[in-house]
Amino acid sequence: MYREEIKVLDCTIRDGGLINNHYFTDEFVRALYKAVSDAGVDYMEMGYRSSRQVAPPAEYGAWKYCDDDKISAIIDGIESDVKISIMVDAHRVLEQEFKPVDESPVDMIRIATYVKDVDKAITLCEKVHDLGYETTINIMAISRENEFDLIEALDQLAKTPVETVYVVDSFGYFFSEQIHYMVKMYQEHMPGKRIGIHCHNNQQLGFANTVEAIRKGANLVDGSLYGIGRGAGNCPLELIMGFLKNPKFDMEPILRVIQDYMIPMREEIEWGYMIPYAITGILNQHPRAAIRMRKTKDKDKYAEFYNDIRSDLDVAD
Amino acid sequence: MYREEIKVLDCTIRDGGLINNHYFTDEFVRALYKAVSDAGVDYMEMGYRSSRQVAPPAEYGAWKYCDDDKISAIIDGIESDVKISIMVDAHRVLEQEFKPVDESPVDMIRIATYVKDVDKAITLCEKVHDLGYETTINIMAISRENEFDLIEALDQLAKTPVETVYVVDSFGYFFSEQIHYMVKMYQEHMPGKRIGIHCHNNQQLGFANTVEAIRKGANLVDGSLYGIGRGAGNCPLELIMGFLKNPKFDMEPILRVIQDYMIPMREEIEWGYMIPYAITGILNQHPRAAIRMRKTKDKDKYAEFYNDIRSDLDVAD
Repeated sequence: MYREEIKVLDCTIRDGGLINNHYFTDEFVRALYKAVSDAGVDYMEMGYRSSRQVAPPAEYGAWKYCDDDKISAIIDGIESDVKISIMVDAHRVLEQEFKPVDESPVDMIRIATYVKDVDKAITLCEKVHDLGYETTINIMAISRENEFDLIEALDQLAKTPVETVYVVDSFGYFFSEQIHYMVKMYQEHMPGKRIGIHCHNNQQLGFANTVEAIRKGANLVDGSLYGIGRGAGNCPLELIMGFLKNPKFDMEPILRVIQDYMIPMREEIEWGYMIPYAITGILNQHPRAAIRMRKTKDKDKYAEFYNDIRSDLDVAD
Repeated sequence: MYREEIKVLDCTIRDGGLINNHYFTDEFVRALYKAVSDAGVDYMEMGYRSSRQVAPPAEYGAWKYCDDDKISAIIDGIESDVKISIMVDAHRVLEQEFKPVDESPVDMIRIATYVKDVDKAITLCEKVHDLGYETTINIMAISRENEFDLIEALDQLAKTPVETVYVVDSFGYFFSEQIHYMVKMYQEHMPGKRIGIHCHNNQQLGFANTVEAIRKGANLVDGSLYGIGRGAGNCPLELIMGFLKNPKFDMEPILRVIQDYMIPMREEIEWGYMIPYAITGILNQHPRAAIRMRKTKDKDKYAEFYNDIRSDLDVAD
């Protein structure tokens, strides 16, 4: 598959940061930046720009804040065409400082939001758009939104300056037919907007669903090295590269970072397909219960977890 | 998704046996048989019926041979509606003894073949069909067969008594569109035959492709617990159950076998998504080179492996 418009975004540091409180060594982030540059990846996301009032620095590493100076120091001296993106949560960010784009190493600001917070996302989007940044809005958890509300949000977004709106399968619940349905809905309600795709791997469908979205026209595609990300993790970037076959791609630098950094890292922090995440995915639930149980001594008591989560759901109905 | 005609086959012991030379404890096989019985799975495959002249007993466990007496001893006393299947390789089996079906614990014989050996497969199929067994023919490695030869084989199979013919993605190479294409081709050339699907997980597409085949009409579906199988492994049975939502299914017994037996087993033998298998999948190659390198001290030298395998392919062309 090759379509020139398709752009690939590496979200290793951002999604990976969710499992280590955004502590990555400078050496690793710099090696990754060099690798994605050599590999022909289009964007690299560094993490979140969170407010220090909301997220106290005692608890988080540098990639929770993504200060311009920090990013500049990391990428200094590395030849690269990679654009830098950072993410901001629409629903929990206080007033943030953003320099004009030409005074910042950042090229793109991605705004994560729930449907209920879409107005906050739009306000923030207009602000950073006026400062010259590329913008995306990533509507999370759409597998549990009602369609009326989602469509209302899409219709609003159609009238904003945002360039890209993401289909995000936060819970790893969707199958191909639902991905097709969502991409089509986004296209119909936001003609001319680029569609992005961000998938989680709870049911081992992260890569498959990314491919399905690409086939239907999604042109901004997220992946992380070796699928690193919270819980079951994300769509693996190396598989996206294998599928896309863009002649500018070179997989070798990516493989080298995986072998040199990610394999040792996987001994320290865990991600990838595991039964508790499969269960929350199948049941269209946030993985938080699975994340909690993986930190207890009962982390492999799958049958008990399955029974517990189902009784909770039955009570909720 | 629910369609009454869909039947699920557990291939844990058979595909898992490929990574431990078919040594599984009687306790595990018996616990699995009880679990799949309680879970509502339709078939359980015990392993291969190989000739002892070809596969010397000093090198393999019991599930390389699947003697009737051995199977009978394992399942004795367990209440079950599960049908038992065994696999025979058409291309390397000597004359085998098969009792008439009503004197054997086996219900179904699955014949694995390459396109080139389809005449051997047909001869064997007719023989065991006459003894009363259900039969399937599983054409392996079709992602590297030329279509003319494959169609010729399908046209031959259309005229045989075989009930089910399998689409087998041996190398984990196919994407959804190719699965759709193959299922349609099988249906067109063998009207009235049941289509089976057996997928490998090299590119994390084992489950996704199984679902795609089901959507197009495949009605005999293979999966293994926790995806156990050679290399990247197979489509996980627990995910199939989550997708199919057949009211007779109960996932809990399956989860219990995974937690009690498979998690400890995974410490001893390895399977699942790994970069070398992703590379052979992307390149449509047999995983044997990846299996070999995973047994060396360089098992995590992915970049070097990628370079080596690509230079081999370039020379071969």
